[in-house]
Amino acid sequence: MTESRLVGPVRIVGVGLLGASIGLGLRAKGVDVILADASPTHLAIAVDYGAGRPAAPGDEPQLVVVCVPPDVTADVVAAELEAHPTAIVTDVASVKLAVYTDLLARGADLSRYIGSHPMAGRELGGPMSGRADLFVGRPWVVAAHDGITYRDGSAIDDLILDLGATLVELTPEQHDRAVALISHAPQVVSSLMARRLIDAPHTALNLAGQGLRDVTRVAASDPELWVQILGQNAAPVAEILRAYRDDLDRFIAALEDVEAPGARRRIAEELFGGNTGVERLPGKHGVDRRFASLIVMVDDRPGQLARLFNDVGDAGVNLEDFRMEHSPGAQVGLAEIFILPEVHERLTDELASRGWRIAG
Amino acid sequence: MTESRLVGPVRIVGVGLLGASIGLGLRAKGVDVILADASPTHLAIAVDYGAGRPAAPGDEPQLVVVCVPPDVTADVVAAELEAHPTAIVTDVASVKLAVYTDLLARGADLSRYIGSHPMAGRELGGPMSGRADLFVGRPWVVAAHDGITYRDGSAIDDLILDLGATLVELTPEQHDRAVALISHAPQVVSSLMARRLIDAPHTALNLAGQGLRDVTRVAASDPELWVQILGQNAAPVAEILRAYRDDLDRFIAALEDVEAPGARRRIAEELFGGNTGVERLPGKHGVDRRFASLIVMVDDRPGQLARLFNDVGDAGVNLEDFRMEHSPGAQVGLAEIFILPEVHERLTDELASRGWRIAG
Repeated sequence: MTESRLVGPVRIVGVGLLGASIGLGLRAKGVDVILADASPTHLAIAVDYGAGRPAAPGDEPQLVVVCVPPDVTADVVAAELEAHPTAIVTDVASVKLAVYTDLLARGADLSRYIGSHPMAGRELGGPMSGRADLFVGRPWVVAAHDGITYRDGSAIDDLILDLGATLVELTPEQHDRAVALISHAPQVVSSLMARRLIDAPHTALNLAGQGLRDVTRVAASDPELWVQILGQNAAPVAEILRAYRDDLDRFIAALEDVEAPGARRRIAEELFGGNTGVERLPGKHGVDRRFASLIVMVDDRPGQLARLFNDVGDAGVNLEDFRMEHSPGAQVGLAEIFILPEVHERLTDELASRGWRIAG
Repeated sequence: MTESRLVGPVRIVGVGLLGASIGLGLRAKGVDVILADASPTHLAIAVDYGAGRPAAPGDEPQLVVVCVPPDVTADVVAAELEAHPTAIVTDVASVKLAVYTDLLARGADLSRYIGSHPMAGRELGGPMSGRADLFVGRPWVVAAHDGITYRDGSAIDDLILDLGATLVELTPEQHDRAVALISHAPQVVSSLMARRLIDAPHTALNLAGQGLRDVTRVAASDPELWVQILGQNAAPVAEILRAYRDDLDRFIAALEDVEAPGARRRIAEELFGGNTGVERLPGKHGVDRRFASLIVMVDDRPGQLARLFNDVGDAGVNLEDFRMEHSPGAQVGLAEIFILPEVHERLTDELASRGWRIAG
C-alpha cells in the first residue's frame, strides 16, 4: 500500500463519477474514506465498489470533498462547513465563481473552504463508472481566494497530489473564463451542430465521416448537467459565443455573395484563423505534426491488433498515439500508428516484411 | 493478382491524395493506369510510388478520372472530354452541381461525363499520402444526371467497385445539400471555434481536454482547398449556417438573461436537440451504447500496447473499437477498449489476473 499525503479521514459527499473516483483513488492509497449520498442505493453501490465506508458517529474528517451537481453545491458546502467545524471543505463543481459568491453572501466560514475543479470526466456517470486513475496526469484547478492561506488549505494540495493530478492555481474568475472557452462554448457549438442533424435524410447521414463525428461527439453529453453548468457560467460563455457569432455572421455574409470582391478572402482568413487557433492546443491529440503516421489494414477478428502491436514492439518502436478507423459495413479496420519520424521508414519495412498491408 | 471489373487503361489527371490512391488501388488489381499532373515532380513521385505510368502516344483510356482542385475541375473535365473522344470521364471534386452546370454551359459532351465523389480523405495531401485502401468500405457518390445512362456510364460503377467502395446514387443537388450538412457546415463550425483560441492564455489552453480537441480537429484542414469547396457550395452551406445561427442567437439570448422565465428550458431544449441529432449518426464512432468499455493504464514505453492486445487476443475477445488517452506530461496512457457487453466481465477478470491496472 502506497503512503498517502492525506491523513484522513476524507469525507466525500455525492458518489457519482467524480466522488466514486476520488474514493477509489484514495482507498488505493490506504486513506480512510467516508461516503455520503442523497441516494441510499448509490451510496450502497459505491461502498460495495470499494470507494469508501458509510459515515459512523464520531467521524471527524480532515477534509470534505463535495461532489454533488452544480446547482446544489453551495448548499451542501455550507452544510458541511457547519457540520464539520474542524474540516477543510472543497468542491469539484465545473464553475467556481458562482459557488464562492454564494458562500460569501451566506457568510460561510471561507477560512476553511477552497473550491477546486478536476479537469477529468467520462461520458458515463454514476458510481459504477468511477475509476481510481481518473485524475492521473489531468489538471486539477485550485480556485484560490483571499479568505484562506495555502498553508491552511494544504489538504487540497495533498488530495490532488495523492490522486496523481497536476495542480493548477487560478482565481475563480480566471477558471470560469478558461472553462467557458475550452469546455462550455465548445459544448454549445457542438450541440447546435448536432441539432442540424435532427431532420437530415438518411442518405446524407450515411455519408458522414470522422469529421462530423468529432465535431458532434460531446453533443451526446447530459443536458441536465449542462443546463446547470451553463446557467452558472452564463456571462463568460455568452461573451465567447457573441464573438463566435460575429465571425459566423461575416462568414454567412461572405457565402451569400461569394462572388463579391473580398468574399473569398474573408472566408480564407476565417479558415486560416482556425488553423492558427487549433495549433495552439498542447498535447498529443489532433494533427500532431511532430509525429509521422503509418496506416495498416487490420482484419476485424480477435488477436489482429495484438499481432500488430507485437510486431511494433518487436521492432523496438514506441507508439506515440494510435487511432482506429472503421467503416460501417466493412470487415476491415484501418489502424493509424503515430510514431517519431526517425523510425517511420524502419517500422514500415519491418511491418511490410511481416505481411502487413501498409499505405501512406 | 485479383481480377478487375475495369478493362483499362484508366487515365488519372492530378496525383494528389485522391488521384494517387485511386492509381495505387487500381494497380493492385492489375489495371493499366496512366498518370498526368501539372507538376512534373508530383507526377514523378506518383510513378515511383507505383500509382501508374506516364502517358504514352496512342493511349486510349477507357475511363478518365479528374482529381484536380475544385476550381479547375470543370476546365480539366472539358479538356479531357475533347482529348479522349471515346472515354468516359468522371471527377472526384467535393461539390457536384457547380462542375455539372459549368460543363452544361460550355456545351460539353455530357453523354460521356458523370461526376462522382468518394467520401474518403486524410488530413495529409500529396501523392506520398496516397494509399490503395483509402476507399475500402467508404461511400462513393455517383452524381446522376439526365444526359447519360447508367449502362453507358458503367465504367464509373466498375471503378468504385474495383476500389472496394460503396456506391451511392444521388443527384448533384442532393449530393451538395448532403455534404453541406455532414462536411462543409461542420468545417465552418469547427474553424470558427478554433479561431476563438488565437488569443487564449496558455493557462486556459493547458486545461483543454478531449472535447475541445474533437470539436476543433478539422479546423486544421487546408484553407486553400476549403475556400474552393465552400465557394462552390455557398448557398446550401449558408442555408444550414443561418439555421445554426438562429439557434445560436436564441442560445445567447437565454444565457444573457439566464434567470428569465423559460431561459433554462430553452437551453435544455437546445442541448436535448443535440443529443437527438448525434444519436442519428450511424457507425461505430462516438459514444456507441452497444459496446461496453474497459479502461486500462498503459506505461508509455515500447511493447506495452502489444502486451495488452496480446492478452485481449488470448482471451478470445474481439476489439470493437479502441481509444488512447494521453495527458500532457504524464508517463502513462489510458487505453479504452470497446467490447461486446457479454465479454466485459470475463475480459476484466482475465486482464486483472495478468496484472493490468483496470478501472471502470
